[in-house]
Amino acid sequence: MSELATEDLPVRTKRRGRDARRVAREANKAITQPYIVRNTPNTEVLGEEGLEIIEANADTVLEEIGIEFRDDAEALELWKQAGADVQGERVHIPRGLARKLIETAPSEFTQHARNPHRSVQIGGRNTVFAPVYGPPFVHDLDRGRRYGTIEDFRNFVKLAYMAPAIHHSGGTVAEPVDLPVNKRHLDMIYSHIKYSDKPFMGSVTHPERAADTVRMAEVVFGEDFVANNAVVLSLINANSPMTFDDTMLGALKTYARAGQATIITPFLIGGTMSPSSVAGTLTQALAEGMAGIAFAQLVKPGAPCVFGLFACSMSMQSGAPAFGTPEPTLALLGAAQLVRRLGVPFRSGGSLCTSKLPDAQAAYESAHSLWPAVMGGVNFMLHGAGWLEGGLSSSYEKFIMDSDQLAMMEVVARGIDLSENGQAMDAIREVGPGGHYLGCAHTQANFETAFYRSLIANYESFEQWTAEGSLDIAKRANAQWKEWLASYQEPELDPAIEEALNAFIAEKKAAVPDSNI
Amino acid sequence: MSELATEDLPVRTKRRGRDARRVAREANKAITQPYIVRNTPNTEVLGEEGLEIIEANADTVLEEIGIEFRDDAEALELWKQAGADVQGERVHIPRGLARKLIETAPSEFTQHARNPHRSVQIGGRNTVFAPVYGPPFVHDLDRGRRYGTIEDFRNFVKLAYMAPAIHHSGGTVAEPVDLPVNKRHLDMIYSHIKYSDKPFMGSVTHPERAADTVRMAEVVFGEDFVANNAVVLSLINANSPMTFDDTMLGALKTYARAGQATIITPFLIGGTMSPSSVAGTLTQALAEGMAGIAFAQLVKPGAPCVFGLFACSMSMQSGAPAFGTPEPTLALLGAAQLVRRLGVPFRSGGSLCTSKLPDAQAAYESAHSLWPAVMGGVNFMLHGAGWLEGGLSSSYEKFIMDSDQLAMMEVVARGIDLSENGQAMDAIREVGPGGHYLGCAHTQANFETAFYRSLIANYESFEQWTAEGSLDIAKRANAQWKEWLASYQEPELDPAIEEALNAFIAEKKAAVPDSNI
Repeated sequence: MSELATEDLPVRTKRRGRDARRVAREANKAITQPYIVRNTPNTEVLGEEGLEIIEANADTVLEEIGIEFRDDAEALELWKQAGADVQGERVHIPRGLARKLIETAPSEFTQHARNPHRSVQIGGRNTVFAPVYGPPFVHDLDRGRRYGTIEDFRNFVKLAYMAPAIHHSGGTVAEPVDLPVNKRHLDMIYSHIKYSDKPFMGSVTHPERAADTVRMAEVVFGEDFVANNAVVLSLINANSPMTFDDTMLGALKTYARAGQATIITPFLIGGTMSPSSVAGTLTQALAEGMAGIAFAQLVKPGAPCVFGLFACSMSMQSGAPAFGTPEPTLALLGAAQLVRRLGVPFRSGGSLCTSKLPDAQAAYESAHSLWPAVMGGVNFMLHGAGWLEGGLSSSYEKFIMDSDQLAMMEVVARGIDLSENGQAMDAIREVGPGGHYLGCAHTQANFETAFYRSLIANYESFEQWTAEGSLDIAKRANAQWKEWLASYQEPELDPAIEEALNAFIAEKKAAVPDSNI
Repeated sequence: MSELATEDLPVRTKRRGRDARRVAREANKAITQPYIVRNTPNTEVLGEEGLEIIEANADTVLEEIGIEFRDDAEALELWKQAGADVQGERVHIPRGLARKLIETAPSEFTQHARNPHRSVQIGGRNTVFAPVYGPPFVHDLDRGRRYGTIEDFRNFVKLAYMAPAIHHSGGTVAEPVDLPVNKRHLDMIYSHIKYSDKPFMGSVTHPERAADTVRMAEVVFGEDFVANNAVVLSLINANSPMTFDDTMLGALKTYARAGQATIITPFLIGGTMSPSSVAGTLTQALAEGMAGIAFAQLVKPGAPCVFGLFACSMSMQSGAPAFGTPEPTLALLGAAQLVRRLGVPFRSGGSLCTSKLPDAQAAYESAHSLWPAVMGGVNFMLHGAGWLEGGLSSSYEKFIMDSDQLAMMEVVARGIDLSENGQAMDAIREVGPGGHYLGCAHTQANFETAFYRSLIANYESFEQWTAEGSLDIAKRANAQWKEWLASYQEPELDPAIEEALNAFIAEKKAAVPDSNI
């Protein structure tokens, strides 16, 4: 780890206004708690019998129907050697084989950040929150909806860096549509490294772009360190139903061989890409996820893998994907149980919504995945903040509002403090019947930390709130992201690393012409 | 039940527009499912050790500190006879006595509705949703915030009658401030009976008003029926900390003696009316609730009681109550566990919020009590729909939005369908790798019921939504409540009952002058 700054780098924030100071304070605090350790039991929706039914059905899917691994002869060869029955591109995986292969996948692993205080532990009772991933558009109250740019990308990296409850810098926080497709990954990875010191995700749109990601990580962490530790976590989506394509398989193989972590994610829109029932969707998801993770273990036994679930309903009126509806909530909770039994970390959830605005629909919908994700025991939450419009837009205002919710969920996940101070018997004795707790010693002693303090919820009286302009929360969030960006200060980065990264990027960009393929 | 209409009365709704037809269809369906039976396990946050600590501490509060029963000599006498150590108005309840007395309280009971198909079962794995209770103001997008009137009261009764996922007509759905305090309960009870046929709540602001409620129920259900069945459920709040006043005790005694059900509710604002810690708040809540329910059993053994928890944080900035924060979420989940061990039904939750508008703050906040309430196993949910501004306003738009959420939570609580149709193996076989589920037989067969269909969430494309005016959900809810009220039709009521009720009300109103005390 010689290339890492070994000092504890304080997060410096311009001290302008109460909120900015709060953020700076919180950001410092966050370094000592770089991820959540959940103390609350997992919410479950399936009993033993239900779990066994779905597991048996998934085994039937793997063996009888099979999974297609397309345009990748090496993948088919690996499966043949492992004992699968390969017919054309269709891989029939004998009952029990996938689960057996997955035994080499770690149940928990560390993803290292360039600031070692920000490294996250993925699996077990830990939960890591990451921002939205993938939207081609961005949205804010001032300019409305428009295509994302690299400036937007940098802004969301900065906001995620400053948000106390966001543990991870994420990946494609907004698609920089202003840059050529074959080179934009270089600027994206660079932005995650330069503007944040939280862990980040790699490019998956081409095997070479995955390789570039690993190379840039080596510049930051050192080749030896990268060879022996997960420093990049990348998103591999299945082409559901029951298919993996060569792009995703190429990226998967590149990362697995480099010992880097992948999230294997069945991508399920009920009624189109999976059955319209929850149990059927879970069956297909389990089969696809097991096939993908087992394949990663064939490529490199021990490669860290996360089982992902991305599920939504279909609107039977419009045919469009619908987020924030109750059926995917049940699927999420059920999948968390199935994946725990598989013994690998689980990714799902986020603040998913279909609404086109950061309004009450967006918030209600987001709660339908945020709540089951945290209470169901998700280990890695992508799309934790900023997701709008079915994932087509990254919203500045919603990013701020969701971040606030993530911080609240952290308090919920911590559970109930049963220490003597938590029991507060002295307070109850001191106050007595008909008394008032405000002035008692216990309240005074716990004043600062007793209750979560939101940065943007308004708790004032109707009269005060009216006097201050009757703003809704989206308007307050609009002011806050601007204040955050204005007070942002970069984390320190070794100038030698920065120079090496820039040299690598310049060389790569000069090597081929721009292309949008 | 001779005075009850014995025929199955169809709910008739003017068939104007798609939504109105949907509501009519749903309202009919709701009669066959008048409350939720939860199939999902309860979410828990306390282990056995934590539960025992809080139970032991609550016993200490009851014995050592005691509970005050103010201005009610009869109450003190009842406690003395039961073996409590009564010092002035302070009742010290020996360890174990309250729990012993509570053994006569039913673990589950039926609250009858005048339409027997609408009767609800309170306790066990059942959950009943009721609307907001108590706001002096009402709020809508057209007229803003203003004092509530009897017209508003009737409107909310009508909306609750029409909302498919609301099982109960509630109580003070909006305070009719235009009517004199000493007579408005007559118009409120009458409105619940005339404009709805769902079960309802009684007046608690004076023992005589409680007696009027029982008398009006007797007109509807018959004296014999009321003597032997719970037909009214009423809200008795403790004057936390550790105090019951004579108004609440008077109403409690009236209802208990009439065999009618009460919800005994510690009213806890952390940091002012209870300790600023969750475990301390739970301890005080358990002690207060046990004392209240034990007292009801002293008045009439077997009187149906629900243990209520109303908990919120205090904003450390403004000193005002704060709803939708994480600490009360934990308190709700912990209280549900403690009350299950006590063996009585549990009331809590609702769509609580502090926001002054039906915006994203309101929705995020509401999810913080809606989710734990349903997943934690609440049996009776007051404030399920319409609560705004810390309970100071009943919001027309939020009522519609919350109702939609309640319907979604009903789907979540139903759990995962593991039938052969739910497993959908035929669909997975039919579609196969790379296929599409939209046209398959299983999707076609389940098209109508596969996914919850929201009446107000928008799932259209950004372009369609823009073409339709870029409305946020509050604006769509505004249109919907107007459409509902316009298409409302009264449930049938025996003209003889209506006449008798009107005669009773006229007599009561003529007996004393109007008063606002």
